[in-house]
Amino acid sequence: MTRREPDRPEAHGGQVRAIMRHFPDAPRPFIDLSTGINPQTYPLAMPSLQTLARLPETDEEDDLREAAAAAYGAADPDMVATGPGSQSLISLLPRIVTASSACILGPTYSGHATAWQQSGMAVRNVVDPDDLVRQSAEPGTVCIVCNPNNPDGRILSAAILRDLADRCASHGNHLVVDEAFADFDGESLIPALPHPGLIVLRSFGKTYGLPGVRLGFLLASPETAERTRNLIGAWPVGSLALAAGRQALRDARWLDRARLAASRAKDRLTGLLEAAGLRHEGHARLFTLLRTDDAPELWAHLCRHGIATRRFSAQPDALRLGLPGDEQAWVRLDHALHAWRGRSP
Amino acid sequence: MTRREPDRPEAHGGQVRAIMRHFPDAPRPFIDLSTGINPQTYPLAMPSLQTLARLPETDEEDDLREAAAAAYGAADPDMVATGPGSQSLISLLPRIVTASSACILGPTYSGHATAWQQSGMAVRNVVDPDDLVRQSAEPGTVCIVCNPNNPDGRILSAAILRDLADRCASHGNHLVVDEAFADFDGESLIPALPHPGLIVLRSFGKTYGLPGVRLGFLLASPETAERTRNLIGAWPVGSLALAAGRQALRDARWLDRARLAASRAKDRLTGLLEAAGLRHEGHARLFTLLRTDDAPELWAHLCRHGIATRRFSAQPDALRLGLPGDEQAWVRLDHALHAWRGRSP
Repeated sequence: MTRREPDRPEAHGGQVRAIMRHFPDAPRPFIDLSTGINPQTYPLAMPSLQTLARLPETDEEDDLREAAAAAYGAADPDMVATGPGSQSLISLLPRIVTASSACILGPTYSGHATAWQQSGMAVRNVVDPDDLVRQSAEPGTVCIVCNPNNPDGRILSAAILRDLADRCASHGNHLVVDEAFADFDGESLIPALPHPGLIVLRSFGKTYGLPGVRLGFLLASPETAERTRNLIGAWPVGSLALAAGRQALRDARWLDRARLAASRAKDRLTGLLEAAGLRHEGHARLFTLLRTDDAPELWAHLCRHGIATRRFSAQPDALRLGLPGDEQAWVRLDHALHAWRGRSP
Repeated sequence: MTRREPDRPEAHGGQVRAIMRHFPDAPRPFIDLSTGINPQTYPLAMPSLQTLARLPETDEEDDLREAAAAAYGAADPDMVATGPGSQSLISLLPRIVTASSACILGPTYSGHATAWQQSGMAVRNVVDPDDLVRQSAEPGTVCIVCNPNNPDGRILSAAILRDLADRCASHGNHLVVDEAFADFDGESLIPALPHPGLIVLRSFGKTYGLPGVRLGFLLASPETAERTRNLIGAWPVGSLALAAGRQALRDARWLDRARLAASRAKDRLTGLLEAAGLRHEGHARLFTLLRTDDAPELWAHLCRHGIATRRFSAQPDALRLGLPGDEQAWVRLDHALHAWRGRSP
């Protein structure tokens, strides 16, 4: 019925067209549940062609940093550096932080390990937060935590992370907290800034449903943020990201409504999964992680129903599902999960 | 008549609103001749909000690299790395090239010196190409040439640069040729790729009049290009840059017409300058460099007429003018230059 299935999971979610090619008989268009991106799209007023025809100006960049500082709870816009997507800031971290090895609380977003490996650093993955605490005392070690974590939705308390940042700082090290999903869940560590051992990353596109814009922020001490801005150089982001950030980050009402809608959607999603007898975990509103020994078969089953989800090379029993964005997507998922439950073994 | 004038030149062109604040009585809107950006804007079909609501996919990124390779004359898309503006690639060069010092043929775009200084490298500026040839034999030296050069429009022949690249390679060094303005003038070194000692940079926004998009390319051996792509990580540019590049880089007819229009505009500009008794230099179609001892006064005079031009900290006798984009701009410039010529000494 289908062509040869791809041999190994994609490096990232969001590669729906690549997946579609392997399931030519599946209903179109595919429904993309392969990312943890908010399915609600911020109603951005697009910049005009005229705006794109000139260079971004410093006052616009400053205004975006002010909007970000206010939205994320940083006391000072000088603690903010802007980049074209938080991935671009992750890639830059080995130049911002002086370290000889990275210790990553995982499994988590693969971009962190990749960035340090690309810079020739040793990367150690730990699964127990206590191991991270121990590593924080090792000279030249940068500690990395995603909070909420992706893909399992694990949330660490701000008290635990604050203590870890203190420990890092007391040994001359840094803690990087990637808060890509923190607009929806968990407690941000940004109010602890400025802190000598703390760097926080925030993602714009996931929250506002605009990942194609590429906009992210690094928040740290003014010295570290300035160093980051200097490393990036002039015009860190383009006119579209400037316009999107300046509009959306000041729209607290939209975000409140988006949080409520995401809560309802998450409850509906976990309800469908439970009705299908599927075990799920995590506290992130924008996505859910399934655990089942049949995960590879369930992934292919959903693909045949025109639904892309995210599988992971290192966790063959896991499948991550984002939130469906419209009623058609809900109906298709419901139908596919019913068929999964009723399949012959 | 005017507020206090700014004490020192802006770090880059394109900061018109900052300049305007110092000349509240000047006609509005200001005419921005402070950059070398093409005043003709490519008639880009803007991507939809729906496109921004998903992550760019690998096949789209590959297609953009194919379009860039074809447009720039590279034999293989694997020689291409994409970045959010060529400035972002300049900032990355110290991680791409192994070197302990940089030798820059100047005066030129300040972003190159800044990038190497930010990475703690020694930067040596030379004005004679023969000095660059001598430096190319020094161990661990990266040579950097902008061709055509900005701001003076000096053009080196491909034969000279090819020889320099060979010399660099024979000593295990690299030559970086920043061809930001090469769509309009000079001979590209890209056909010499793959070459073990050569890295070329290209800028999209200047050529297509869309600097707010932030799109640039690094072209090098497949190994160096791959290393660059790995350092940048996933999603090097957003949906807008992908759409703009894939449209415009395949539109050879638009570029042909733009070249012709720029030639005519450049002739008209130098005609006006000569009529005003002003000495100009350089062979870049998109901008002209004036030399006059009165450059600071001329800069302020033009500002008072609502025209922003580019002055330089290190060259107080120089002023760079980009091409006026419409008849109103031409008339205002003509009027301002007449008034300059007829001023009381």
